[in-house]
Amino acid sequence: MAKFRGDMNQSVATMMTRVRDAHPLVHHITNYVTVNDCANVCICAGGAPVMTDAVQDIPEMVAHASAVVLNIGTLNSRTSDAMIVAGKSANLAGIPVVLDPVGVGATSYRTETAERIMRSVKIAVIKGNAGEIGILAGAGGEVRGVDAVSGAHDTASATQQLAQRTNAIVAATGQIDYVSDGTTALALRNGTPLLEQVSGTGCMVSSIVGCYVGTCGVSLESVAAAISVFNIAAEIAASKADGPGTFKPRLLDAVATLRPADIDARLKVA
Amino acid sequence: MAKFRGDMNQSVATMMTRVRDAHPLVHHITNYVTVNDCANVCICAGGAPVMTDAVQDIPEMVAHASAVVLNIGTLNSRTSDAMIVAGKSANLAGIPVVLDPVGVGATSYRTETAERIMRSVKIAVIKGNAGEIGILAGAGGEVRGVDAVSGAHDTASATQQLAQRTNAIVAATGQIDYVSDGTTALALRNGTPLLEQVSGTGCMVSSIVGCYVGTCGVSLESVAAAISVFNIAAEIAASKADGPGTFKPRLLDAVATLRPADIDARLKVA
Amino acid sequence: MAKFRGDMNQSVATMMTRVRDAHPLVHHITNYVTVNDCANVCICAGGAPVMTDAVQDIPEMVAHASAVVLNIGTLNSRTSDAMIVAGKSANLAGIPVVLDPVGVGATSYRTETAERIMRSVKIAVIKGNAGEIGILAGAGGEVRGVDAVSGAHDTASATQQLAQRTNAIVAATGQIDYVSDGTTALALRNGTPLLEQVSGTGCMVSSIVGCYVGTCGVSLESVAAAISVFNIAAEIAASKADGPGTFKPRLLDAVATLRPADIDARLKVA
Repeated sequence: MAKFRGDMNQSVATMMTRVRDAHPLVHHITNYVTVNDCANVCICAGGAPVMTDAVQDIPEMVAHASAVVLNIGTLNSRTSDAMIVAGKSANLAGIPVVLDPVGVGATSYRTETAERIMRSVKIAVIKGNAGEIGILAGAGGEVRGVDAVSGAHDTASATQQLAQRTNAIVAATGQIDYVSDGTTALALRNGTPLLEQVSGTGCMVSSIVGCYVGTCGVSLESVAAAISVFNIAAEIAASKADGPGTFKPRLLDAVATLRPADIDARLKVA
Repeated sequence: MAKFRGDMNQSVATMMTRVRDAHPLVHHITNYVTVNDCANVCICAGGAPVMTDAVQDIPEMVAHASAVVLNIGTLNSRTSDAMIVAGKSANLAGIPVVLDPVGVGATSYRTETAERIMRSVKIAVIKGNAGEIGILAGAGGEVRGVDAVSGAHDTASATQQLAQRTNAIVAATGQIDYVSDGTTALALRNGTPLLEQVSGTGCMVSSIVGCYVGTCGVSLESVAAAISVFNIAAEIAASKADGPGTFKPRLLDAVATLRPADIDARLKVA
Repeated sequence: MAKFRGDMNQSVATMMTRVRDAHPLVHHITNYVTVNDCANVCICAGGAPVMTDAVQDIPEMVAHASAVVLNIGTLNSRTSDAMIVAGKSANLAGIPVVLDPVGVGATSYRTETAERIMRSVKIAVIKGNAGEIGILAGAGGEVRGVDAVSGAHDTASATQQLAQRTNAIVAATGQIDYVSDGTTALALRNGTPLLEQVSGTGCMVSSIVGCYVGTCGVSLESVAAAISVFNIAAEIAASKADGPGTFKPRLLDAVATLRPADIDARLKVA
């Protein structure tokens, strides 16, 4: 696997500051389970979330947004159509679309909807768990409910293959997070096991990715920076939590108050 | 701007106790982003929240309610129709309707829906941010997503004008909160910057306004009391929080445990 | 009322461990107010929540689930149909269905929907508050909004009657929780008044019941164990909370970290 080019620490810290200064509007169409956490983490990362999923509302709202996040966690006919409208509006406006294919492979409806979105909309970033990315890459992987049971045999390669085929930046999260632009693949090694004990931490990552690619452009580095900021904040939060319940508010605090020095001290990229 | 009439401190503390004793049922039709926070803050303030948005359910549910809160944060065709049904049911039952015109001005769908609700339903209180109130008053103001970019040139006047035109009590929240009944306007100066770093704090205010006007009647004082209770609780919570994440549970604690002495010590009304 | 048969303490601790080891997938169709709390408490109890309510998704998702939880807190035409589909899929798959008849008796739509679900689907467990169970049992009880105003004259008997009529395990929660299989009735005396100051604690119990009956089978004991684990965790959380806001994260922590020794020390069953 290729090495990361340049000084990642400085790059992550610089992007964190840029996002906080830009206060990007990030339009979400997402599930009703974790939507509040997405809104709050987006604010804590420096963004301004908006969550409208009415087709009457979407084109005008997207026109002012910096990025669109589509999350298929709780689909229905109305919202899956709304995702296509939002995605096409974003393509027209030239702003990036982040797709979180929650539960892809668990049911054919989810798989078909993810494929329909990917056919209809130019996707800038696909961010899923290792199982979802393995399945979309056609490289194996198993999803039960909305959780990865197993990823591809080689998640780094699956990530790279899917990136090549889709021309998107692809991120597969797990104990190690892999990010690829089709040429280079990074392995991000920050995080805490508590992230798996809270519903929606994957969705929250996608919201932060929206903030970063909407502000800093779509690149391997901006996606990796978003994931790393979240995971480093999670490490700090874990040290102050007594369990999954107190971890979540601490995680939001840590995203909001993260300092460049924390990134310097903790970032693990290979 | 006119001064507040009488002893506001005593008035706020008295109303707080009345709401806690009355345990008012407050029917919400609201957005799916912050609905849980609205439910919990309503309980903490002394109320009993109910959130049904099915037209089959609404007339019977409203018949037992003390107030109805309509929040257009995440509209769709089904819920905007439900809001009209709920509002008309409330009008028939003689209970107050609170309108939170979230994101009005950001899209024409939101503006049209807010206007449709205001034409179809007698609104007792309009509570928005400074941008939303400026736009509804036709006095300027800009909304991006669901956040105010700027209010009217003179938010106090815009609040007063909208109150005169609609015969509603109007509140515009921001660093200073303005409340007017069309004759008098109050400036409320409690709060903390952390309120802007948590999604849904504006929605939470509207839920508390529902509790207060449903229990104490619709007046400049009851709306101002609701906002002040929330903002004073927020000040106390801020002193115990390490960031936006730990602020929210502390805010709910503070609303639930606020004492008359806290109001005496902190209330800032002009 | 009959006594509990055998060593309940050991039984509860054993079941808690079994659930944590089994990591049961629990499919919810539930309300949008408290859905996030249901997801998180399910994870903390050892389960894997999934919340899809699209009819296109349900049969395949249910096929991999260990239990289905149907909660009518915020019904609409689409989701009430989805509940029937999910319930029938669960019946076909031979996995238990837990019904939480939120607000039954408050409106005729809720009552009719609960009855329609009970006619169309074999229900394994009915878990409601004392008012809801009293109403379903035809034994009195009053519900205002989604809260019990009063239960049946004799909630233990109402619970037993409803269990006999429906062949379900029935649980009526309140200051004392009653659980019956139609023959035996248990009175569970754990808990804290803070549970009534947080929206959705009843919904959270139903999610944990889903984990327990999905792992340990449908029985008086497994339902009682689920309720007791939650209520004992709530007692521990209450001792660390400053109000309803800080109580909720502490409650999730306590469910996740509860030890058999805590059950030994605290369980109150008669």
